[in-house]
Amino acid sequence: MKDDSLYHFSLGTTTHDLPAMFGDVKFVCVGGSPRRMKSFIKHIAAELSMEDAKSEYPNICAGTDRFVMYKTGPVLSVSHGMGVPSTGIMLNELIKLLHHAQCTDVTIIRIGTSGGIGLAPGTVVITKQAVDATFLPKFEQVILGKTVVRNTDLDQSLAEELLQCSKELNQFETVIGNTMCTLDFYEGQARLDGAFCSYTEKDKQDYLKKANEAGVCNIEMESSVFAAMCKLSGLRAAVVCVTLLDRLKGDQLSSSHEVLQQRPQILVGSYIKKNKSKVCSWDQWL
Amino acid sequence: MKDDSLYHFSLGTTTHDLPAMFGDVKFVCVGGSPRRMKSFIKHIAAELSMEDAKSEYPNICAGTDRFVMYKTGPVLSVSHGMGVPSTGIMLNELIKLLHHAQCTDVTIIRIGTSGGIGLAPGTVVITKQAVDATFLPKFEQVILGKTVVRNTDLDQSLAEELLQCSKELNQFETVIGNTMCTLDFYEGQARLDGAFCSYTEKDKQDYLKKANEAGVCNIEMESSVFAAMCKLSGLRAAVVCVTLLDRLKGDQLSSSHEVLQQRPQILVGSYIKKNKSKVCSWDQWL
Repeated sequence: MKDDSLYHFSLGTTTHDLPAMFGDVKFVCVGGSPRRMKSFIKHIAAELSMEDAKSEYPNICAGTDRFVMYKTGPVLSVSHGMGVPSTGIMLNELIKLLHHAQCTDVTIIRIGTSGGIGLAPGTVVITKQAVDATFLPKFEQVILGKTVVRNTDLDQSLAEELLQCSKELNQFETVIGNTMCTLDFYEGQARLDGAFCSYTEKDKQDYLKKANEAGVCNIEMESSVFAAMCKLSGLRAAVVCVTLLDRLKGDQLSSSHEVLQQRPQILVGSYIKKNKSKVCSWDQWL
Repeated sequence: MKDDSLYHFSLGTTTHDLPAMFGDVKFVCVGGSPRRMKSFIKHIAAELSMEDAKSEYPNICAGTDRFVMYKTGPVLSVSHGMGVPSTGIMLNELIKLLHHAQCTDVTIIRIGTSGGIGLAPGTVVITKQAVDATFLPKFEQVILGKTVVRNTDLDQSLAEELLQCSKELNQFETVIGNTMCTLDFYEGQARLDGAFCSYTEKDKQDYLKKANEAGVCNIEMESSVFAAMCKLSGLRAAVVCVTLLDRLKGDQLSSSHEVLQQRPQILVGSYIKKNKSKVCSWDQWL
């Protein structure tokens, strides 16, 4: 395709010089919340001693309100909104952007929040496999009205490197485990506090315990499409989510969880700092 | 439930006086884009001659970046992001909000954008039924790992009233038809311009023509969960989307579509203005 409009980024091949803007990208971090992705770019710039003198990080996608995007040196930070469809739109356009910009050897990490099962709130989970609501490691996509099943494996060596990095940091508990990805936050995650609920506390406990027995450590809403699309496009990918609560003990979230939300940023920031020497032409950004 | 935190609105029963803040709401308009929902509240305030002297409409959900919410008199304007999961989170918390605030006789309308099939770009489609990617009028929700099927009928009298309103406005073409709701924007809508594509132009045309023969006028990503949840909660509901392009003729969107995006706002604004006398205690806002 000669002309390509990346509509939900408000970028395009005819309107922007994508190789010049993005050709040096080596790490992409994505997450649901626009504010968190802005906070991440400031954090990583400080980690890499690449702070902008004015500390201004302009939103590259300012022409739209669908997603935000920030860049410092080889690191791109992009929001994806909540849920599989929103994340799928962002990833389609991000993968096309990286292709148009001729990027190579890109590592992509989702930094997010989740509900844990049987873990102390604040535990960070690095995803081994993204599983569906029946605990199977697959992502179902409907194409031309027919269901296509895609693999949701993530890069195991990257997961191990992130775990090792967390051990060295020694600031919070981190585990590797399966992550259940659902299409709904309330009934889809067996919450009792949604607008509708047709099951009991016991039904909820039974379901979450079965999930846990199947290896599920945490529940969120984006990992399956992220794993499937990154695998299809050959990106080295990981999902790093903090658990904001233990779902065996409750359903409600509160704003007091905000400090916990920084943990994936801290871990991934530390990982990128540690691996900056692997980026051969790192000097160009310093 | 005594204490209820509406986390993704950054509102709650213990932190906010919800009946005082929202008890007078009679119309709720929702849409994907935060900017469009801010633009709508300004538009409806002008339509109802209820402009704030300072023309400042504070974001009621300023404590979070997940959704935005604005209010003028009996009209609430709320964003829902892109896709079924994001919209489902918003609707769960909106339905709980309206319940806690003891609102009665609420009409809720989604104002959105879509791809049309065989319609001139700019045509407004009022949804009769939301259908899935196999053209069936149902919304499947996974609860405790099991699929539950929900009805996606919308209020037919409200649809007719909106169509009549558009005839009186006489500014653009409006039709009533079925709306296909998909979980993906690219492969899920048979686009050829996504990051991946394993089918031909002919496969795409065949699929879209089959959809059209089944009564589908347009395609978007939120109508099924909107229809299902509004029906379950007894809200009078409609979906009003403008078509930004004819999918039989192309896939790509461009920013030149921005003026068309105002048409659902104009139609729904006109409808609310026309029906303000039906709100018994309308005088209280004037």
